[in-house]
Amino acid sequence: MESNTQKAIAYSHENIQKFIDSLIEFLKIKTISSDPQFKGDVRKGAEWLSTYMENLGVQDVRILETGQNPVVYGALTQAAEDKPTILLYGHYDVQPPDPLDEWDKAPFDPVVKDGLLYARGSSDMKGQAMVSLAAIESIMAFDKLPVNLKFLFEGDEEVGSPAIVPFLTEHKDLFKSDFVLNLDAGMIAEDKPTIVYGLRGLAYFEISVTGPAYDLHSGLFGGVVYNPIHALSELIAGVKNSDGEIQLPGYYDDVLPLEKKEREALNALDNPDQYYVDQTGVKAVFGEKGFSNVERLGARPTLDVNGIWGGYTGEGPKTVIPSKAHAKLSMRLVPNQTPVKVKQQLIQYLEENAPKEISWEVKQLASDPACITDMDYYATRCFADSLEEVMGKKPVFKREGGSIPISTHFQNILGCDSVMSGFSLPEDHIHSPNERFNLELFEKGIEVVIDYFYRLSQECGE
Amino acid sequence: MESNTQKAIAYSHENIQKFIDSLIEFLKIKTISSDPQFKGDVRKGAEWLSTYMENLGVQDVRILETGQNPVVYGALTQAAEDKPTILLYGHYDVQPPDPLDEWDKAPFDPVVKDGLLYARGSSDMKGQAMVSLAAIESIMAFDKLPVNLKFLFEGDEEVGSPAIVPFLTEHKDLFKSDFVLNLDAGMIAEDKPTIVYGLRGLAYFEISVTGPAYDLHSGLFGGVVYNPIHALSELIAGVKNSDGEIQLPGYYDDVLPLEKKEREALNALDNPDQYYVDQTGVKAVFGEKGFSNVERLGARPTLDVNGIWGGYTGEGPKTVIPSKAHAKLSMRLVPNQTPVKVKQQLIQYLEENAPKEISWEVKQLASDPACITDMDYYATRCFADSLEEVMGKKPVFKREGGSIPISTHFQNILGCDSVMSGFSLPEDHIHSPNERFNLELFEKGIEVVIDYFYRLSQECGE
Repeated sequence: MESNTQKAIAYSHENIQKFIDSLIEFLKIKTISSDPQFKGDVRKGAEWLSTYMENLGVQDVRILETGQNPVVYGALTQAAEDKPTILLYGHYDVQPPDPLDEWDKAPFDPVVKDGLLYARGSSDMKGQAMVSLAAIESIMAFDKLPVNLKFLFEGDEEVGSPAIVPFLTEHKDLFKSDFVLNLDAGMIAEDKPTIVYGLRGLAYFEISVTGPAYDLHSGLFGGVVYNPIHALSELIAGVKNSDGEIQLPGYYDDVLPLEKKEREALNALDNPDQYYVDQTGVKAVFGEKGFSNVERLGARPTLDVNGIWGGYTGEGPKTVIPSKAHAKLSMRLVPNQTPVKVKQQLIQYLEENAPKEISWEVKQLASDPACITDMDYYATRCFADSLEEVMGKKPVFKREGGSIPISTHFQNILGCDSVMSGFSLPEDHIHSPNERFNLELFEKGIEVVIDYFYRLSQECGE
Repeated sequence: MESNTQKAIAYSHENIQKFIDSLIEFLKIKTISSDPQFKGDVRKGAEWLSTYMENLGVQDVRILETGQNPVVYGALTQAAEDKPTILLYGHYDVQPPDPLDEWDKAPFDPVVKDGLLYARGSSDMKGQAMVSLAAIESIMAFDKLPVNLKFLFEGDEEVGSPAIVPFLTEHKDLFKSDFVLNLDAGMIAEDKPTIVYGLRGLAYFEISVTGPAYDLHSGLFGGVVYNPIHALSELIAGVKNSDGEIQLPGYYDDVLPLEKKEREALNALDNPDQYYVDQTGVKAVFGEKGFSNVERLGARPTLDVNGIWGGYTGEGPKTVIPSKAHAKLSMRLVPNQTPVKVKQQLIQYLEENAPKEISWEVKQLASDPACITDMDYYATRCFADSLEEVMGKKPVFKREGGSIPISTHFQNILGCDSVMSGFSLPEDHIHSPNERFNLELFEKGIEVVIDYFYRLSQECGE
């Protein structure tokens, strides 16, 4: 006898063109959150989504105001009380399409070619949002949903979700769930289903160094003053040693060591140096000694200067000794480092190393702690099983180099861990011209989510 | 019996108000060379000057085109052939007066207050030009000039004399002289007549460092690439050691050692650290170990970063690993260093120290060799004697920290050394609001030049 999973999957296959057509409708709405002139389009996107969810049978669908772009909420909580409640997270806003002239087709006029759907937002993440909605429809065509769901689709992800913390705090009870399913991540390759279980945090600083009180003529004063650019350069140079190790005092003390199992899992997806050379155009890779590239990228803390400026930067020569020099410097943090502590370490480093002839100050510009989910968390393990079932391959577990602040906020405000995965590919050009989504993975994704909901339901109770 | 010198000085005293009135007329013309809208005023300045010189009896007065602002030429060559021919150098252009609201009076509406004449250009250098013209008039009132003179007043000094090299080359014969008298320098204090005998050269470079081929996301690639800002900072940091010594290979090999006599003369005018702290607002002075401030400023080569830029420099955080970072770096050179050789040294330094993961390039933006005049050169010694005679004090011999490229050009093109002195003071605010000229020094200056012409004439022949 056919299982419910099989039935739902069969429905999804029969209706795949309908799902694609709906996605194309969704993609035509220019939900560009970074440009105020598209404010109305972003709201149209929220309205389209809420109508679509209502038609699907989602209950209590609401467009909630945030002070920025609205959040679309909904609930589907007809499963038994011992079944988990999942907060399905997504965003309906997209990146701006610029540069427009590099698109082969218009970014908001979706086209399918060779099994790829081209449009801004196809992969990031209207397509991935539609994966979940199609899975839900495929189940609800003949059954009630075997798990409880709440929906949170935001409209500000691409601009850093400036209102999400007060919004979640205000609506804490409404969004109360067991965990978050966030399909805004992706796969590392077409044959490698991927689960993201760790995200690095971010601590971002601006350092300003002051030498003389005003710009000096280097002919008149060159030789007797400590040049602030020189001082800043020395401070930057000294912050890493020649093995790429960060020299802030105590910087590695809190870093959670990598367990053997985790290291093995991570290194299973390491790439050779040449891969990164090809991707970035550097002459050779460089990173912390004693670690593989994949460890350096996801599991080890890093420090980078993101910008530097001071003195004369125009055409030709100008013989100035500047009064000030500035740098933006950020650190990617791993569990258990905290932005507060690394700030103290940075200040201690400056106190110990800045020449006495100059003064300095530090401003903190961003502060997101790192976030990690236990690889053995039941909801994660279950998703891994569904990926393996549908894709025929064990998923790889990946730590993401970037931070996804929303996961930290869910953790802090709702107490929810996140299951992070997705079906977009590195070659999908997210944030770039000719963004696309692989329709075979769209279909597979729907199967995975169907399988996941039933699998999760069976593991919990019954 | 009254000497000719005494007669001329007496004339200058009697006519001092007339000279000041002429200077005020000259100062009213807005000869701002850096701003194209004053092009016509600059030419008016040249015309005023040439008329003034003709009225004085200067022969062959001509306004010579340079492609930029014109040069005013003239000659007074009625002295015997065994008398020296002096090229009297000056400039009639002035700095822009900005910021205008910091002037107590309008910059081109000269006023005398407490013996100080306030106006843009009063000190730099219409006032100093008028010193020579008044001295000449005072002699010619009853005598013919005891030395031969040629005049070169340019209109582009404040914009770096962009046309002077081809101009001098073209008019090499016209300007042929024994040496140059350049009264565009100044005194280090009111009671310290000053002769500048050395000028540092300038070698100016732009260094560009490239890491990845395009800007990367630090979350995605932080940890495996060599950040070009970091590499540039390391290269800058390493270029000096903690004693302030420049680490370019062989940098000090060519530096002419300071002779004992010269060192003593220089150190007679050293200032305590606090003087430079007060002047610049730094917390403490810093310079090459083993040398006094005055040696560091004039007699030792220096290296300064004049500008640096790379990556994100706007508001707030942006997590970019930039593709490129740039710095402007210049060196003040002393005899016998050459811009060509220090460029080779810089390149060697980069070859030996740049990390292999990045690439770099160097562009040369300016190149002026250092210039020094023998302190015992007869024309210099003679000027020192005149200063002592009139001011009652032996002059101090100073090396200037900046470069005065025109002296190098006179040396290279005409084969002429320069006698560099002047009567402006550090507190005269040249290039700044409320520029002024001390009228007592104006009067003394005229006496010095009168004394000089007769003294020089006596030393040579008769």
